Amino acid sequence: RTLKGLHDAWSGWLVVLLVGLAAGTCAGIIDIVTKWLTDIKLGTCTGKFWLNKESCCWNSETISASGENCTEWKTWAAIFGVDHGSSTTIYAVNYMLYIVLALSFASLAAILVKMFAPYACGSGIPEVKTILSGFIIRGYLGKWTLLIKSITAPLAVASNLSLGKEGPLVHIAGCCGNIFAHLFPKYGKNEAKKREVLSAAAAAGVSVAFGAPVGGVLFSLEEVSYYFPMKTLWRSFFCALTAAFILRSINPFGNSHLVMFYVTYNKPWFLFELVPFALIGALGGLYGAAFIHANLAWCKFRKTSKLGNYPIIEVMVVTLVTAAASYPNPYTRIDASMMIAELVKECGPVVQNNLCDYSFSKQPTNTTFSVVQDFPVAPIGSGLRTALWQLALALLFKGVITVFTFGLKVPTGLFIPSMGVGAIMGRLIGVGVEQLVYMYPDCVLWNTSCHAGHSCVTPGLYAMVGAAATLGGVTRMTVSLVVIMFELTGGLQYIVPLMAAAMFSKWVGDAFGNEGIYDGHIRLNGYPFLDNKEEFTHTTLATDVMRPRRGDNPLTVVVQEGMSVEDLETLVRTTNFNGFPVITSHDTQQLVGYLYRRDLILALENAHQHNDNVLSNSPVYFTLHAPTPSLSNTNDPSPVRLFNIVDLSPITVTDHTPMEIVVEIFSKLGIRQALVTHNGKLLGIITKKDVLRHIAQLNKQDPDSILFN
Amino acid sequence: RTLKGLHDAWSGWLVVLLVGLAAGTCAGIIDIVTKWLTDIKLGTCTGKFWLNKESCCWNSETISASGENCTEWKTWAAIFGVDHGSSTTIYAVNYMLYIVLALSFASLAAILVKMFAPYACGSGIPEVKTILSGFIIRGYLGKWTLLIKSITAPLAVASNLSLGKEGPLVHIAGCCGNIFAHLFPKYGKNEAKKREVLSAAAAAGVSVAFGAPVGGVLFSLEEVSYYFPMKTLWRSFFCALTAAFILRSINPFGNSHLVMFYVTYNKPWFLFELVPFALIGALGGLYGAAFIHANLAWCKFRKTSKLGNYPIIEVMVVTLVTAAASYPNPYTRIDASMMIAELVKECGPVVQNNLCDYSFSKQPTNTTFSVVQDFPVAPIGSGLRTALWQLALALLFKGVITVFTFGLKVPTGLFIPSMGVGAIMGRLIGVGVEQLVYMYPDCVLWNTSCHAGHSCVTPGLYAMVGAAATLGGVTRMTVSLVVIMFELTGGLQYIVPLMAAAMFSKWVGDAFGNEGIYDGHIRLNGYPFLDNKEEFTHTTLATDVMRPRRGDNPLTVVVQEGMSVEDLETLVRTTNFNGFPVITSHDTQQLVGYLYRRDLILALENAHQHNDNVLSNSPVYFTLHAPTPSLSNTNDPSPVRLFNIVDLSPITVTDHTPMEIVVEIFSKLGIRQALVTHNGKLLGIITKKDVLRHIAQLNKQDPDSILFN
Repeated sequence: RTLKGLHDAWSGWLVVLLVGLAAGTCAGIIDIVTKWLTDIKLGTCTGKFWLNKESCCWNSETISASGENCTEWKTWAAIFGVDHGSSTTIYAVNYMLYIVLALSFASLAAILVKMFAPYACGSGIPEVKTILSGFIIRGYLGKWTLLIKSITAPLAVASNLSLGKEGPLVHIAGCCGNIFAHLFPKYGKNEAKKREVLSAAAAAGVSVAFGAPVGGVLFSLEEVSYYFPMKTLWRSFFCALTAAFILRSINPFGNSHLVMFYVTYNKPWFLFELVPFALIGALGGLYGAAFIHANLAWCKFRKTSKLGNYPIIEVMVVTLVTAAASYPNPYTRIDASMMIAELVKECGPVVQNNLCDYSFSKQPTNTTFSVVQDFPVAPIGSGLRTALWQLALALLFKGVITVFTFGLKVPTGLFIPSMGVGAIMGRLIGVGVEQLVYMYPDCVLWNTSCHAGHSCVTPGLYAMVGAAATLGGVTRMTVSLVVIMFELTGGLQYIVPLMAAAMFSKWVGDAFGNEGIYDGHIRLNGYPFLDNKEEFTHTTLATDVMRPRRGDNPLTVVVQEGMSVEDLETLVRTTNFNGFPVITSHDTQQLVGYLYRRDLILALENAHQHNDNVLSNSPVYFTLHAPTPSLSNTNDPSPVRLFNIVDLSPITVTDHTPMEIVVEIFSKLGIRQALVTHNGKLLGIITKKDVLRHIAQLNKQDPDSILFN
Repeated sequence: RTLKGLHDAWSGWLVVLLVGLAAGTCAGIIDIVTKWLTDIKLGTCTGKFWLNKESCCWNSETISASGENCTEWKTWAAIFGVDHGSSTTIYAVNYMLYIVLALSFASLAAILVKMFAPYACGSGIPEVKTILSGFIIRGYLGKWTLLIKSITAPLAVASNLSLGKEGPLVHIAGCCGNIFAHLFPKYGKNEAKKREVLSAAAAAGVSVAFGAPVGGVLFSLEEVSYYFPMKTLWRSFFCALTAAFILRSINPFGNSHLVMFYVTYNKPWFLFELVPFALIGALGGLYGAAFIHANLAWCKFRKTSKLGNYPIIEVMVVTLVTAAASYPNPYTRIDASMMIAELVKECGPVVQNNLCDYSFSKQPTNTTFSVVQDFPVAPIGSGLRTALWQLALALLFKGVITVFTFGLKVPTGLFIPSMGVGAIMGRLIGVGVEQLVYMYPDCVLWNTSCHAGHSCVTPGLYAMVGAAATLGGVTRMTVSLVVIMFELTGGLQYIVPLMAAAMFSKWVGDAFGNEGIYDGHIRLNGYPFLDNKEEFTHTTLATDVMRPRRGDNPLTVVVQEGMSVEDLETLVRTTNFNGFPVITSHDTQQLVGYLYRRDLILALENAHQHNDNVLSNSPVYFTLHAPTPSLSNTNDPSPVRLFNIVDLSPITVTDHTPMEIVVEIFSKLGIRQALVTHNGKLLGIITKKDVLRHIAQLNKQDPDSILFN
């Protein structure tokens, strides 16, 4: 028995270990495949087509003049032998192949999703959230979803659509969690226990998506999980850390970091910068609110119009537009996470690109690293001017196209596109502030912080803050957002700017609508999700919500004595309630318990099978002591005793109970229905659906949009 | 009304802002005073007695040969002019003054606590935890406690007792939270809302204690708070960050970090090191378990013997022993957090102390900083040998004396002493592993990781891991522990070693007893704390726990009609229940509601005051429609209608409800009592005390030790 206890105690750790291993491995493979597919749109490695650009050029000694390409890596124009044509031809060939490959990736992804696993589309976070609140969606976390989503997520990202693989990674980790939970009876058989594993899996998903184990746990806690017991916290952390450790061992980016845009800054931030940070936060909140409204409206249109019938064509059209518009702009041509990586970097003597092209009176030397802190400030150069224009166009394009992309029938993550928009916005504002400081060095706001002639503003940090602001505006994450971002910046030093941006973003966003994009999609899809973060502030009572309403038919109940098998069979046939309250008698109406429909059906079948004397007119007793059949009259139908299938401890509330408390009971105890009594007599029943409808009604939303299983 | 709504929404942010500001300020002042008081035991700054040693020597150009003292800073022997005596005399004078000052600090602290604020003793965390679970201890978070604890915590730390100010800082922040909550009616008047502020305050307390805002929030979430709504998470984070920001602006340690032992390492860790890390974790868990048992036994002895009557003398005796034994050993003579700071440092070319005294064949030069990574490895030198002996003795002494110190009637934090013990243990093991690697460079475990002749083991990291292990063993913290420690080490790189140590520590600790030191003290003090982390795994039913038991007197109830004022007054006088169930009549026993004692007393007083005709024999009606008194008989006593004071929505459970669900209802809904019914008829009542007693009984503990208010 000690052994069994030990196995029992360890199976919890084992399952999260396995989930962590699996999630880390999946993420590693997905990262590698994504990078390869993304690069292949632009060219291929001669002789070693299986290498991505970086690996291809890793050992090359023949770096081209621009420092970007090596001779082994050839663009498609070069492969097809048109690299000696005019530059227009080369451009056209590359452009065409870029579009063709993007289109084929996207349509392949859409077809795979449609044919094999329809649940693999979207980000999956709204559904995982709903599942964790107690709703069951069969197959949503199955092995087909896992397989297809793992294959299609890289395809979708590589097709240059404005989407990320970070949200889908949470869904993929959730699938791993579900599959491994079934290996352990303790977790597979018990929905509540399984949800603990799923919470841990969600943490692992974010952990590998951003290389942020602590942020992942907090994301699971704050955003995804419904009920998060403390015991789960520690296991989730273990799971998240295992996944991150495995991913790091796989080292998909070749830089020993878990994400493409891990960054460290060498300059501190100054107090006056909180003003632009707050502004960025507010703009991020505005963008988030606008995005949520626009995206929900578009998704609603898709659902209600014919558009919804042509998912593959829709994907292809959006891909075509995206690819055609993306290629000319160097910032949209590359992968969004690579763009973010570029934008959050700080300029220094070793960084040579358009973003760092200032008109220095004297080019800074790169003798020692510490020079970064004394990096001179200068007016923007022509390269940076071009970059700013390109970024502004990219901002506009990405901001708009993401609205139409999120909700396509391919795996669509929202983290990276949101962060991309924010990073562009932040970088633009950062350069603006930098130039402002350069032009007015004596302004009282910063003349004590910044030494004249030296750079004290880091536009890269502004990009990071901007990414946090838009992500916060779209998802309304708070603590987990800040923690993820500071795990990305590798230091606690920048926690205050990130926090300021996240706060202003949330405040401004909430002013235009209280729900994040995930809650919005939950509502749009009508999932029965009872938000436990919202306070119920109305003064209605249980009696206002319960059924039957005044004038309705009386409640369908079962009485302890006096019903026949036929009565019950009629009840089951004519109604579709998932259970029936049991009362002592129609006169006293005193509540005995609750009888589940499935238990009743099974029990009646059993009775028929095991006793031929059970007929339609057999009396059924739900009492502890049923009368024994008189032996003389063996032809009488045998009575059926079903006391043992009555749930004798249903949750009850009185008719005077404020709905505030009823909502609290429903959300905290996770129940599906509560019986309403008055002085011990049954009055009615409140189901979770009634509660959700009531809340929707009070919020002036359509109460009939709520699904229920 | 918009303005009121706005004020309502903002008052939540304002109160946590104020709490954060206050907690940060308190912590800053306490840190500065503590440092000054600690230094003054050893000497004083000539002419500027208000400066601590570091400030005193800051601008001095006359650093003494040892690099430790400047000429402005004089030991007491020098002040009293005996510095030209024999070295024994000097030592004796310094020793005596050290003891005398320590004794006077400690006794002053004990006297202040005893005279002005008895609640200021101890760490306060068990009590804050109990308060957050819904128990009210009047004055525990009052302004006197705040004032006295803020004054006595530095005194206690400076007296060199084996205690820290980190736990008390949580209590102090809690006091700030309570005081500011009373400024806002929304929070002051509502206990549940006030607890939200207290949760945030606890986060701020840990945030300033360790400079770990994220760790603070997780500590509040994991260890202190009972019910932590997500909305609170964000505010707690804001509060913790504000406090940390303020503390950083005060900059008490002059190094722009928030704690004395912030550290960064330049070397990575290697996979083989997980073996010693796990060993350290297991040892930490063992120490924790032993400490908890010993400390609880000693505290029980104090409570039950005469020792408890002489708190000041006890403090003085322990201080005398501690001071006398501490002075000769350089590692115990200094403040424990300074000792930890020494132990967690890595050795490098610029570090010159006994701990880094290796027998180098060639002294490493300190030309560039990057040499740290190629720091040569060498056998231990004589200085290190001495240091190891002193550390071993310090380990033994601190390990034992802390058992007697935690629980003294002065503010006693447990974080720093536990971490100190662990840091010593870790450093000893770290040096051991380092020498092992040096002696057997070809061992297969590490020959791939470590290049011969170069140091690849960082004993300082082992000290950090050891500190995490013992702290984990004593408090059984998990995620918050790891996060606090990695915030101290300033990098995510060491999260795996810390996690490994924390996990082994918890596993080993839990094998010897499932409760942490705070839960142990909660149980020892009999606070009514219903642990929501423990699963209830027994199969008892509500009927086994409810009162009245079989053979007891019947339950004291109130009937809706037919009781007189006198009956009710007798009921109030002869019983001390906090309320009475209301039933329809003695025959039907149907439950109507619950009547709170205080409401009943108030209502009866009111009735007497407002109507002279209310006499002892006045009938009392708890029904909605009471008969109107007949106008003819004006001499009849007036009836009293008290329907409106009956709580018509009491939480009920049936007698067949498993206790597992009852415990869940109690802990999640935070209720004090539930009524037990059968078929709508009242059978009995279960109070929180009954639940706690039942759990204590099942765990084979004394059920009568539980207090209740």
